[in-house]
Amino acid sequence: MTEPLPAALYADPHHDGSAFYVSNLDPDLGDVVRVRVRVPSDWGATRVRVRVRPDGEPWFVEATRRGGMPHVEWWEATITVENPLHPYRFRLDRGDGSAHWLNARGLHRLDPRDADDFRLVAGDVPPAWSAGSVMYQVFPDRFARSAAASSRELPEWAEPAAWSDPVDPDRRHTAAQFYGGDLAGVEERLDHIQGLGADIVYLTPVFPARSNHRYDALSFEHVDPLLGGDEALVSLVEAAHARGMRVLGDLTTNHCGDAHEWFRAAYGNPGAPESEFFYWLDEEQLTYVSWLGVPSLPKFNWNSAELRRRFIEGPDSVVAKWLGAPFHLDGWRIDVANMTGRYRTDDLNPEVRRIIRRTMTDVNPDTLLLGEFTGDAAADFAGDAWHGAMTYANFTRPLWNWLRSPGSPAGGGLSMIVGETQDWDGADAVASHREFVAGFPWRVRTRTMNALDTHDIPRFVNDAREGTVPVAVGLAMTMPGLPVIWQGDEFGLTGFDGEDSRTPLPWDALEAAADRIDLYARLAGLRSHAALAEGGLRWLHASAEAIAFARECPEETLVVVATRSAGSVDVGVDLAGAELLVAEGNATADGSTITTDGAAFAVWAVAHATAPAWD
Amino acid sequence: MTEPLPAALYADPHHDGSAFYVSNLDPDLGDVVRVRVRVPSDWGATRVRVRVRPDGEPWFVEATRRGGMPHVEWWEATITVENPLHPYRFRLDRGDGSAHWLNARGLHRLDPRDADDFRLVAGDVPPAWSAGSVMYQVFPDRFARSAAASSRELPEWAEPAAWSDPVDPDRRHTAAQFYGGDLAGVEERLDHIQGLGADIVYLTPVFPARSNHRYDALSFEHVDPLLGGDEALVSLVEAAHARGMRVLGDLTTNHCGDAHEWFRAAYGNPGAPESEFFYWLDEEQLTYVSWLGVPSLPKFNWNSAELRRRFIEGPDSVVAKWLGAPFHLDGWRIDVANMTGRYRTDDLNPEVRRIIRRTMTDVNPDTLLLGEFTGDAAADFAGDAWHGAMTYANFTRPLWNWLRSPGSPAGGGLSMIVGETQDWDGADAVASHREFVAGFPWRVRTRTMNALDTHDIPRFVNDAREGTVPVAVGLAMTMPGLPVIWQGDEFGLTGFDGEDSRTPLPWDALEAAADRIDLYARLAGLRSHAALAEGGLRWLHASAEAIAFARECPEETLVVVATRSAGSVDVGVDLAGAELLVAEGNATADGSTITTDGAAFAVWAVAHATAPAWD
Repeated sequence: MTEPLPAALYADPHHDGSAFYVSNLDPDLGDVVRVRVRVPSDWGATRVRVRVRPDGEPWFVEATRRGGMPHVEWWEATITVENPLHPYRFRLDRGDGSAHWLNARGLHRLDPRDADDFRLVAGDVPPAWSAGSVMYQVFPDRFARSAAASSRELPEWAEPAAWSDPVDPDRRHTAAQFYGGDLAGVEERLDHIQGLGADIVYLTPVFPARSNHRYDALSFEHVDPLLGGDEALVSLVEAAHARGMRVLGDLTTNHCGDAHEWFRAAYGNPGAPESEFFYWLDEEQLTYVSWLGVPSLPKFNWNSAELRRRFIEGPDSVVAKWLGAPFHLDGWRIDVANMTGRYRTDDLNPEVRRIIRRTMTDVNPDTLLLGEFTGDAAADFAGDAWHGAMTYANFTRPLWNWLRSPGSPAGGGLSMIVGETQDWDGADAVASHREFVAGFPWRVRTRTMNALDTHDIPRFVNDAREGTVPVAVGLAMTMPGLPVIWQGDEFGLTGFDGEDSRTPLPWDALEAAADRIDLYARLAGLRSHAALAEGGLRWLHASAEAIAFARECPEETLVVVATRSAGSVDVGVDLAGAELLVAEGNATADGSTITTDGAAFAVWAVAHATAPAWD
Repeated sequence: MTEPLPAALYADPHHDGSAFYVSNLDPDLGDVVRVRVRVPSDWGATRVRVRVRPDGEPWFVEATRRGGMPHVEWWEATITVENPLHPYRFRLDRGDGSAHWLNARGLHRLDPRDADDFRLVAGDVPPAWSAGSVMYQVFPDRFARSAAASSRELPEWAEPAAWSDPVDPDRRHTAAQFYGGDLAGVEERLDHIQGLGADIVYLTPVFPARSNHRYDALSFEHVDPLLGGDEALVSLVEAAHARGMRVLGDLTTNHCGDAHEWFRAAYGNPGAPESEFFYWLDEEQLTYVSWLGVPSLPKFNWNSAELRRRFIEGPDSVVAKWLGAPFHLDGWRIDVANMTGRYRTDDLNPEVRRIIRRTMTDVNPDTLLLGEFTGDAAADFAGDAWHGAMTYANFTRPLWNWLRSPGSPAGGGLSMIVGETQDWDGADAVASHREFVAGFPWRVRTRTMNALDTHDIPRFVNDAREGTVPVAVGLAMTMPGLPVIWQGDEFGLTGFDGEDSRTPLPWDALEAAADRIDLYARLAGLRSHAALAEGGLRWLHASAEAIAFARECPEETLVVVATRSAGSVDVGVDLAGAELLVAEGNATADGSTITTDGAAFAVWAVAHATAPAWD
């Protein structure tokens, strides 16, 4: 096709590490990969080089100009992947003697830092199915209760609640309040989850514990009988797989519960083989290091080879067991991944995460590994183990800060876990997002959770400006990342903190929630576009009230516009003749100008052949 | 003292990680350290917190307001050093609900990345003597030749040259051209070195090799007899120590020469114990991995425990031997530190550098460890092993780019090692400097070499604008870092690349060089000011033609001004009554305005009691 590209799509030299610009995102070590940069013809590039750093030494590879299309040049270089994490950036010289650098943080006139290079990752390819997926997060005690649940005998710690009871705000009861949701309840509602457009079910822990959240496991050997036991998990996974859906589990590698069989064996018993699994503070082994000083959560000591063998390493480990027959989980989300293996002078985190991933690969390479990371996940999420992050800095915070109601209390909103909200405009939100994703290799970025909320934080709707829920959900589905629907968001549930957000799902209100359920289904439906799973991203606009970007693949370009108020914005791409894929709120296009009468989200598809073939 | 601070010294909230703001830069693990931020009273801070990340989890510590001085508030928090590398940053809230972050890259309204936090380092304290030092770099073959040199028999590879011969530009001869400088020659000239104000002599390698640079060692057991052998080193170090000077050696941990005894034992001999010291590419051990593919420099394989034992680990290792009796070297500069231990899937670099440091500490904790790092050194230089870097991104490049002659060829100047020069203005140079030092803990920053040039790159004077040599040398002496005088700079020698810069020193031109030698002595004399060794840094001005900054300690504030052309600049600090310490070029102060008639460098000392005592 020879039709000129809209100017906004070639305004500056661009590369983003996506498959649109890289011939192979999943190379093996030693493979040759081609990388491209798109440069406006009138920008005046006279020489383009790729700076790589094999074994730590900076080195330049020449790029050559490829026949392009009107107004646009493609420069392409061939680089060899010399290390598992292969950094690169572009240097573009102009005829006037000036030089520019293009890296994961953008285009720079001054020297950029090495940490901001683009990065290729060799080995351990994330499962292909995770690229265009939508995740639904289930907190089993609060999702759904099967008929069998009522006949189960409750343990002493549990304080039984009726499904319609409110969540007890008293912190002395929050962990014990027991509603009795179970895995059969989840299986019975797979229709509902699938109907939202989700194809990954992420279950928070299912091991027996002494709390409703089960992050204080007392064993990793069996599924909690209160959830229906091992058989219930087998049945749920089989049913999900039969629908083409996947199921992820949740493991606590930083700590266990103080009722855990390993901890009980070691507590007060220095002779026990499990003694080395923990950090003791006295010789009698009566005091110990725990998660943030909470004594019910003793911290694991990953110096122990026996702990590794039992828990994460090899075919007999916990990590392996649940991925193999008869359970066949499709991967793990790892709790408190940021603290795992870290204590004083110990930093065993890289070892532990790589062992976990190696074990998973040995059992079933087609499994997904996500890690929780409060704070900035970039340093740990470079593709050596975690495929993606459950984190808040790159997506959750920018969206909250942009879309929260102006009347929200200062510092309110998000919890301690992810920091306090502030008032940002759209340009701030985009700038902050760009900062925090710059550290992720593209394939990590696309597997990192785009969560508006989770079981650990308030619900987005609590603080949201009027009409912005569709905007936020739309962005979760269209920005690079793995969109997450936290159970109950589709019912419009509220929650002022993580505990309060764990309301049992009001299944009798399904009808009333039909519009919102349709909204999710509509927006999740966009995920089938290759441009969202594989495409590049180029920002078209970022101002106080509106943001816009393009996702590009060889077949089509999606133009995504999001606003929080009424107004007009020029996105620089003529949308006459473009296909309107979704429009939430009122958004109309006149040429390249989008006009809205309030918060709105819309996506157009434009046909463009924008890249030369890879041959 | 109650005199108000000049406004430029409290224009924004400030902290820089120096001893001016931190109660203890050298804590042990578990120690309590106080950190302070200086905030203008009218900035409106209502709450200040320190965000730390013990074991990887973000956490806030409240700061309290301390009685300050007019216009200024000090906020102080007490933090516990929980990990060897302890990151922290400040969050400052204002009454209007807005929040700002203060980290190693400055003050930010949006969320900063964790990698840009300030950092405390616990353990392995760098030697105190290295804080206010000046280093002189010696390349033995070209420094000075003692009388004994002429009687030595030359090996076959050496192509003898007379001291007055020009450096042979033919690359087939550059490494073999042998002038015969020796260690006795260095000892004879210690007066000269000390006269320049230098107190550290850094010797490039002294082990026998098959080149004049000796980076291709054939043994680490003895000093090259061509340099005078072991006795000459013992004598040199004793003479230096007697003057209160220190001597650093240079080790190649990435590779050795292909004539090295370990490599000869292993080459073509798979049964040899030394086989595991290298990366072989065939079973007969005839082909192997080498530094940038240069076959004379086979790369070490640090997976070998035996290599570690012989070379870097324990009291019998090479690393230890030369620091102990009878040699007593005061530390090591490690060649190609950036590539050491890195090959394909191996990244043993952190292990290797920590073992080197541990061995050194065991022999003599009062020794300095520097590592060479082309590219951006931040990731490897976080205080876990290297005390400082020999690197070019943070100091050399910004200064070259600002002070090079406008007529210099585009892309000329610096070599492949450190990138090509460009035309930058003073604000660019400061911005780039700030980017690249942000990653260093303060005590690494102050031990990182401020080198205008070295044996590996062209000489600064080659491309320098008229009159800027004193400016550049002045900045090397006053910006945080370890100033380096590369032998010959004091003679005004030129050199268009690293080889060409290795001219034998023209000792018969000492008299002609007297002015420049005086210049070095004058500027190096500034190093005795505590504000340069320990003080904080605050930028006062950065424009195209001029930069200015303050270095602050409780006793005094130094105001440093550097310009590349005639003009006037307001530095915001009234210098009436201040003591003019040095003035190179013509620089006059009228109040806070400095006027120059060309390139100039000047330093004033202002008496200010600017911080509350630490109690």
